[in-house]
Amino acid sequence: MADCLFCRIVKREIPAVIVHETETTLAFRDINPKAPVHVLVIPKEHIDALIRLEKRHAPLLGDIHETIQEVARMEKVDTTGFRVIVNNGPDAGQAVSHLHYHVLGQRHLGWPPG
Amino acid sequence: MADCLFCRIVKREIPAVIVHETETTLAFRDINPKAPVHVLVIPKEHIDALIRLEKRHAPLLGDIHETIQEVARMEKVDTTGFRVIVNNGPDAGQAVSHLHYHVLGQRHLGWPPG
Repeated sequence: MADCLFCRIVKREIPAVIVHETETTLAFRDINPKAPVHVLVIPKEHIDALIRLEKRHAPLLGDIHETIQEVARMEKVDTTGFRVIVNNGPDAGQAVSHLHYHVLGQRHLGWPPG
Repeated sequence: MADCLFCRIVKREIPAVIVHETETTLAFRDINPKAPVHVLVIPKEHIDALIRLEKRHAPLLGDIHETIQEVARMEKVDTTGFRVIVNNGPDAGQAVSHLHYHVLGQRHLGWPPG
């Protein structure tokens, strides 16, 4: 989508600190980090939100989770621990209408999660 | 795993308020809810944590996300919004070593997420 912030990051039209990339996914640092490690993992394909995922996206979900694991290892939080968050819609405060998985770590993460 | 709490819920050896079930997934209410809607979605297969997912699990990830969507619709948070959280390891406070996706909704969810 031409006017989607994350699609524009995928196309390198807007800068971002990219930490990992695969054929189908991109991982970059959140510009407003809430932990020492705060990376966003997105599919390159534009999908509005988690609720819009379709059956055909199962392989893509595999890719996304593989990228999350790779980010966790690269950021050295794979053993200390990390939290993955997906916000869907208004009550969750979804800020960009392009599916994204937040990966937070390198500090204790409290409960409840917001 | 014989001594895993969530495997025992799958086998109906321990009671839980089950809200949805598929061939590969189970959804039940968190016993210590942090929002009016707080459901856990798990794979029936025992997987310790998100970091332990393998390539072969892609179809299962599709099933898990489909169950999350179904729970969101059943609990009527599909339009108002919901947050999905996966805790992996100590820093995130992962309480049960069986992969589980928290689904929270029916209230405003703050930021940071813990």
